[in-house]
Amino acid sequence: MIKAAICGYGNLGKGVEAAMNESRDIQLTAIFTRRGPETVKPVRDGVKVYSYADLPRFRGCFDVVVNCGGSATDLPVTTPEIAAFFNVVDSFDNHSHIPEHLAAMGRAAEEGGNLALVSVGWDPGLFSLARLYMNAVLPEGSDYTFWGRGVSQGHSDAVRRIEGVADARQYTVPVEEAVARVRNGERPVLSAGEKHTRECYVVAEEGADTDRIREEIVNMPAYFADYRTTVHFISAEEMKRDHGGLPHGGSVIRTGSTRGGTESQRMEFSLKLDSNPGFTGSVLTAFARAVCRLRAEGKTGCVTAFDIPPVKLLPGEREDAVAHLL
Amino acid sequence: MIKAAICGYGNLGKGVEAAMNESRDIQLTAIFTRRGPETVKPVRDGVKVYSYADLPRFRGCFDVVVNCGGSATDLPVTTPEIAAFFNVVDSFDNHSHIPEHLAAMGRAAEEGGNLALVSVGWDPGLFSLARLYMNAVLPEGSDYTFWGRGVSQGHSDAVRRIEGVADARQYTVPVEEAVARVRNGERPVLSAGEKHTRECYVVAEEGADTDRIREEIVNMPAYFADYRTTVHFISAEEMKRDHGGLPHGGSVIRTGSTRGGTESQRMEFSLKLDSNPGFTGSVLTAFARAVCRLRAEGKTGCVTAFDIPPVKLLPGEREDAVAHLL
Repeated sequence: MIKAAICGYGNLGKGVEAAMNESRDIQLTAIFTRRGPETVKPVRDGVKVYSYADLPRFRGCFDVVVNCGGSATDLPVTTPEIAAFFNVVDSFDNHSHIPEHLAAMGRAAEEGGNLALVSVGWDPGLFSLARLYMNAVLPEGSDYTFWGRGVSQGHSDAVRRIEGVADARQYTVPVEEAVARVRNGERPVLSAGEKHTRECYVVAEEGADTDRIREEIVNMPAYFADYRTTVHFISAEEMKRDHGGLPHGGSVIRTGSTRGGTESQRMEFSLKLDSNPGFTGSVLTAFARAVCRLRAEGKTGCVTAFDIPPVKLLPGEREDAVAHLL
Repeated sequence: MIKAAICGYGNLGKGVEAAMNESRDIQLTAIFTRRGPETVKPVRDGVKVYSYADLPRFRGCFDVVVNCGGSATDLPVTTPEIAAFFNVVDSFDNHSHIPEHLAAMGRAAEEGGNLALVSVGWDPGLFSLARLYMNAVLPEGSDYTFWGRGVSQGHSDAVRRIEGVADARQYTVPVEEAVARVRNGERPVLSAGEKHTRECYVVAEEGADTDRIREEIVNMPAYFADYRTTVHFISAEEMKRDHGGLPHGGSVIRTGSTRGGTESQRMEFSLKLDSNPGFTGSVLTAFARAVCRLRAEGKTGCVTAFDIPPVKLLPGEREDAVAHLL
């Protein structure tokens, strides 16, 4: 039985908790939080809750810690801190900063004699693996990644920070015509705005100027300015009733060719998720298992999903996987 | 530069040749055949052709041999023979006999101090990897594999062996309604015949009894009796004009759930291939690269796609893969 701990008890932490509770070989033993530990109520009895500051005291008590903080400011600080004491997994998703994060983690984990696995989830994570396998087997081709229809937490947060906004939810929506062209084997050059549109549902504070809010959203650089963005003002009741979930999904498509371009070949990996944190928690749990197995074989330092032999993700024996899944 | 050889120069061998000719780090240096070597004409000058019987004489000359024989009678004999002298990759696809093949290969490869990788292609191979990742991250769920629309060589051969048949092509076709139900998140229990139908195109010999041929096809045990099978008699010209290619494809779908069944999650991996041997050749080539890399790290014995860290499949540096694909 693998003894695991979770750091951070937001949506993702709860998703990891649920996945560990359903796994047959991983026992969730503790949750660490930066809020007051008394505010956290684990689903199962027997799971202890502690302050994050106390984590180093538990060295040797857990086989792996899953760090469920946010990528913007939390994970770059806390994952290296944790790696000094424990094997650790995170879902750092700021693609352009992954190499830096990997380097920092490698130093921390090596010094602690631990194994760290960073940037797993579905993108980065499963979508990255899909891109890798597709590029390896079809070197001549073009990749396309479409996200959605689904809730982007980062974009929702950006809207919430606008003055006069009480609550907001942003859906990233792939442009159907673009997806159809790629599936049809074309290799179009597509700008960000030609691949996705953005739909915002906003609860305005009483008396707020909705025209100004709309303008601030659609013109926000990086987040919205480059996309066709629609803004819908709704009531708090409608928000709760119609937008309470965190669905997501998307597709990685590679259209390529073999035999000097004479044969067209297409590969696609896609997800349709009722719950993004529920699914991501399940992915992190499988990779936490792999980290424990690789550490038991003596591996230390920092790795990514690209470095993990797939069979390490499964509970049970390699022979069973070969017999039933190959 | 990796020095590679191919054994067998049928459709698959030619697919591997094409993929190696397009790769930047693998040089095809020789082709071995059980036909007369003078009958084989490699695409590129400088590639030598030898008799299969001479293969052991070349020990030390190639980093890896890709064995492109048939799974029914050829690979179970020749892959262990080759593994005694070389690192080797094959596409053994008789799912129920994979564990035996793996055991036989393991002994041969260990004795020769070589590394063997068996059963790669797209199924077994990429589809197996999709099943593994999907099962690992969604332990609660059901898998479905649909093949086609595409030409099954085994079923085409079975029809060709019937008396009075001059030529035949069999297409395996997924039942659209079944695919739609699975994509819709249902978890139906489906028999083989509820998942696929079979379409046969047959050129009859002059004067042959087409009614008898049709009956023999649709009642053939294991191959056709359990499926809705249609038989179309066509001319040799129509066969050449309309059925000259070897297209294939299919989907692996897992519909599962998280958080005690309250959240429905769906994953799908699909292929649409103009040319099955062209694509499979490309897959074998990527895995041949991985075998050379793992052997260089000291690994021997017999492995499957499940044991290979994905990053080993790519030419170039791990850092590039992390920066561009993660």
